[in-house]
Amino acid sequence: MKFLRNYWYVAAETKEIEPGQILSRKILNESIAFYRTKEGTLNAVQDLCPHRYVPLSLGRVQGDDIECGYHGACFNGKGQCTKIPGQDTIPDKANIKSYPVFEKYNFVWVWMGDPALSDDTSSMPDVFYMHDSDEWDANVGLMESFPAYYELLNDNFFDLSHAQFVHPETLGGGRLSEVFRKTARPGKVSSLAENEEGCVFEVSENKVLTEIHVLDSQLSPFFHQVMGKMKFGQENYEGNLDWLLSIEWHAPCITVFKPFIKPAGAPKDEGFYLSWQANIVTPETESSCHYFYSACQNLALGNDEVNKNLFEAFSFAFSQDKVIINGQTSCLSSYDFTQEELKSRVTFPGDQVTGSCRRVIAKLMAEQERTA
Amino acid sequence: MKFLRNYWYVAAETKEIEPGQILSRKILNESIAFYRTKEGTLNAVQDLCPHRYVPLSLGRVQGDDIECGYHGACFNGKGQCTKIPGQDTIPDKANIKSYPVFEKYNFVWVWMGDPALSDDTSSMPDVFYMHDSDEWDANVGLMESFPAYYELLNDNFFDLSHAQFVHPETLGGGRLSEVFRKTARPGKVSSLAENEEGCVFEVSENKVLTEIHVLDSQLSPFFHQVMGKMKFGQENYEGNLDWLLSIEWHAPCITVFKPFIKPAGAPKDEGFYLSWQANIVTPETESSCHYFYSACQNLALGNDEVNKNLFEAFSFAFSQDKVIINGQTSCLSSYDFTQEELKSRVTFPGDQVTGSCRRVIAKLMAEQERTA
Amino acid sequence: MKFLRNYWYVAAETKEIEPGQILSRKILNESIAFYRTKEGTLNAVQDLCPHRYVPLSLGRVQGDDIECGYHGACFNGKGQCTKIPGQDTIPDKANIKSYPVFEKYNFVWVWMGDPALSDDTSSMPDVFYMHDSDEWDANVGLMESFPAYYELLNDNFFDLSHAQFVHPETLGGGRLSEVFRKTARPGKVSSLAENEEGCVFEVSENKVLTEIHVLDSQLSPFFHQVMGKMKFGQENYEGNLDWLLSIEWHAPCITVFKPFIKPAGAPKDEGFYLSWQANIVTPETESSCHYFYSACQNLALGNDEVNKNLFEAFSFAFSQDKVIINGQTSCLSSYDFTQEELKSRVTFPGDQVTGSCRRVIAKLMAEQERTA
Ligand code: FES
Ligand code: FES
Ligand code: FES
Repeated sequence: MKFLRNYWYVAAETKEIEPGQILSRKILNESIAFYRTKEGTLNAVQDLCPHRYVPLSLGRVQGDDIECGYHGACFNGKGQCTKIPGQDTIPDKANIKSYPVFEKYNFVWVWMGDPALSDDTSSMPDVFYMHDSDEWDANVGLMESFPAYYELLNDNFFDLSHAQFVHPETLGGGRLSEVFRKTARPGKVSSLAENEEGCVFEVSENKVLTEIHVLDSQLSPFFHQVMGKMKFGQENYEGNLDWLLSIEWHAPCITVFKPFIKPAGAPKDEGFYLSWQANIVTPETESSCHYFYSACQNLALGNDEVNKNLFEAFSFAFSQDKVIINGQTSCLSSYDFTQEELKSRVTFPGDQVTGSCRRVIAKLMAEQERTA
Repeated sequence: MKFLRNYWYVAAETKEIEPGQILSRKILNESIAFYRTKEGTLNAVQDLCPHRYVPLSLGRVQGDDIECGYHGACFNGKGQCTKIPGQDTIPDKANIKSYPVFEKYNFVWVWMGDPALSDDTSSMPDVFYMHDSDEWDANVGLMESFPAYYELLNDNFFDLSHAQFVHPETLGGGRLSEVFRKTARPGKVSSLAENEEGCVFEVSENKVLTEIHVLDSQLSPFFHQVMGKMKFGQENYEGNLDWLLSIEWHAPCITVFKPFIKPAGAPKDEGFYLSWQANIVTPETESSCHYFYSACQNLALGNDEVNKNLFEAFSFAFSQDKVIINGQTSCLSSYDFTQEELKSRVTFPGDQVTGSCRRVIAKLMAEQERTA
Repeated sequence: MKFLRNYWYVAAETKEIEPGQILSRKILNESIAFYRTKEGTLNAVQDLCPHRYVPLSLGRVQGDDIECGYHGACFNGKGQCTKIPGQDTIPDKANIKSYPVFEKYNFVWVWMGDPALSDDTSSMPDVFYMHDSDEWDANVGLMESFPAYYELLNDNFFDLSHAQFVHPETLGGGRLSEVFRKTARPGKVSSLAENEEGCVFEVSENKVLTEIHVLDSQLSPFFHQVMGKMKFGQENYEGNLDWLLSIEWHAPCITVFKPFIKPAGAPKDEGFYLSWQANIVTPETESSCHYFYSACQNLALGNDEVNKNLFEAFSFAFSQDKVIINGQTSCLSSYDFTQEELKSRVTFPGDQVTGSCRRVIAKLMAEQERTA
């Protein structure tokens, strides 16, 4: 299985790498040593010393370089070997691979493809300003080495009908599953009027946008509680709600949910975003990924309780997804289904949306192979 | 490695599956979801949703059906897909495999072969009425996923000479090993007179019966204690004992031991069955099995101490067998012996009895392949 | 990967095998049961019963024999089957493999090659008398099944330049790394004068001797503390030291370090051996080894504190090597480098010494294959 390479992937939160420290993380099957100089500059090089094949992450930061912990060879952020102890000349083959890195939105991004193309930052979706803004509180969690093929997580985000069965308490309210299954149609997301119930998904070259409206409904308990507390100063809001949900997927594996709620029939300025939730998945190997999940809110800045409740609701929901995805991974491995067989499974209404994501990736993979 | 399919296998104790609950268990390499409706009806279907390959056992029981925990597809006890949420017609390929199940003797039995032949209940040995009778107390234990190929357990049950070396305290008493090794002969078990020492084994198409008599002997301490307590109201019986042991093996993997003891030379009605011990082995994979072991007694109905002592003696003996079988499994795997090589190992006296069991299975396997 | 066979390997410390006890240990991929009779005689046979493939180490010692724990077959120290219970004649194929064993220097040595050649004890280096002498205290530790290919440990012992980076507190002092890297030259070790700084290594058919002198230096804190306590009765010695280090490597995997220190410029009789350290590596499988490490001293016989300090310093240093070698093993496995690729890695100054060891082994392996 191959990966899409000419993309910026999230490798870490910036705070995971302190000045003078090294972080080892495997991304697209490559072990990378991320290190920060004492002055704060971030570098990323192959986590392997070419001398005796020891992880450089077992060494230490010395000035601008990373020093191997076995016999002291040094490498700078460009992967150039700057020192072989006891020797004056350094052969070219002592140099190692380095990776373009970029810090933005409080994340460390790494470019896994042709360095010459790394100026293209379009795979770093600008939606993430919420992670690095005074106007939002961000609550980020990381599931390192989550044992699943990354497209299974995409499948999970795309098939909204799972919410009713997997997350009845939090994200699964009302007629979401029904509306998703019965009305999803391709089209411009702007074609779905604010007061129109339905679901539209809009596929472009490396993006899928989905807009779904569930109107005049009882949603999950969580939504009614937040509406009650945030708008009416009471424990709960028992009236019906309108739920306008925008979802942005950026190939290959970033999905942002923006659930907007308001009292049923109210004008839009009487409602608010419950949160913006980013799901950032970075493949580690063919069978594992790093999953950064975040819940951002601008309803009550600096309010620890609101932040905590939101993060816990989201973490709890993901713990439910985990059970399902783990089971799925174990079925797929014990039955040894090939990709071909995966295509011939039974199709359900709504699978066209999930399928659109799989097709975008397949097309981009084919393109990558053609130009390789 | 293949398995004998047209057999009823024990899948669980009935009490393992409560009303409204699902039990997942792998049998002959197939993951099966056993579920019981709220009314108590038991069903067994393939533990795999055909939509996205999620274990159905992660879902829930809804009425007569099992509902997938991911997107809510429903399946009835015949494996028919009864609901695809959001869709009116259901394609045939949404149906899944179901398994005939039957509850008898407090066990759940599952038929792993051609459903058309499942009326044949002859592989459900009637000896098991002790598990479901007012006249017996049954004490059942389960070793789930015991890591050994199931025929290694058969080998263990058949070669009685192991008792002297593996179970000196409990089941290994007296001259059992010697009698077994030196006198075992094929024949009608009825040909061994009650007062004759010796061992006879009787092979039929899918059964082997063994009768072994050890007379006028000091047996293991355990036997003398039980004789003392049960018959003479004293801590121990020091006199010699006669031990008449019947063993029934039912292909492929059920073995029942019925040890009868009496004071040496006494008429039969002065003795009693120490217990009836059933060893029910159900292959899980080529390298593991589920092992239900039970110790039933009718000497002191409802007597907790007697039941506890018996069960502990039996559990202890099996913990000793486990050490041996684990070691054997690890040798067989690290030496990578083929079945052919297994046949050419050194043969000991008594191996003809073990061999008879192996040969019955090989013949039934050959038959199965011929008619496949 | 194959191993050098016609060698005496250390299998255990003698005290690991008590009278009447059995020890199972895998050496060069072969599981061996070492047992000692009640009278103390040591034997080594294949740890596998030819009857049903059960480890003999699960059995028990009976007289001069080892008795299988399953059905009681017996084998003597020559591997001859001496008893098949219930049978008078014993077929030849019931015999099993036995191994020449020899106890010397408080170690159990086993011969893994052609028994006819086992008289050649030259692979049992006589340097080990320190382990079995009234004039030395020996402190031996064992790392069983250390997960690394054994030549990686040889590499570690040979490339002294690692000490500065891996063991700054204990064994890595002064200019050792620099002298090693810049001056190492092949030659007679006797050609390095006592008062000459430098490094010479002397390669013979199955041995490499290295002599390295670091003069008039501040060494690691540990060396200065020992010099202070042992010679001047004070906590520390702050003056410079001369360090004369002899290293003997005996193919395939025994390395003895003899570090001698003295106040800088002092005559030799004012100094002492800090210790003699033996590193005895016995391959278990292609990817693991048993590592016996010992620190012997004759400075303060019977002084528990000195022994403890020395052993702890050495154990601590090895725990540092472990981190590096584990990382290396995991890199080598995840990158799947072939041996060919290992040869083409970047070469550093000093690698000629490590290379000399690798080349001796390669040559001996080639010889072994030619004469096989
Ligand atoms: S392994 Fe890195 S310098 Fe030797
Ligand atoms: S996986 Fe079962 S309904 Fe989708
Ligand atoms: S397995 Fe050793 S005697 Fe049977």
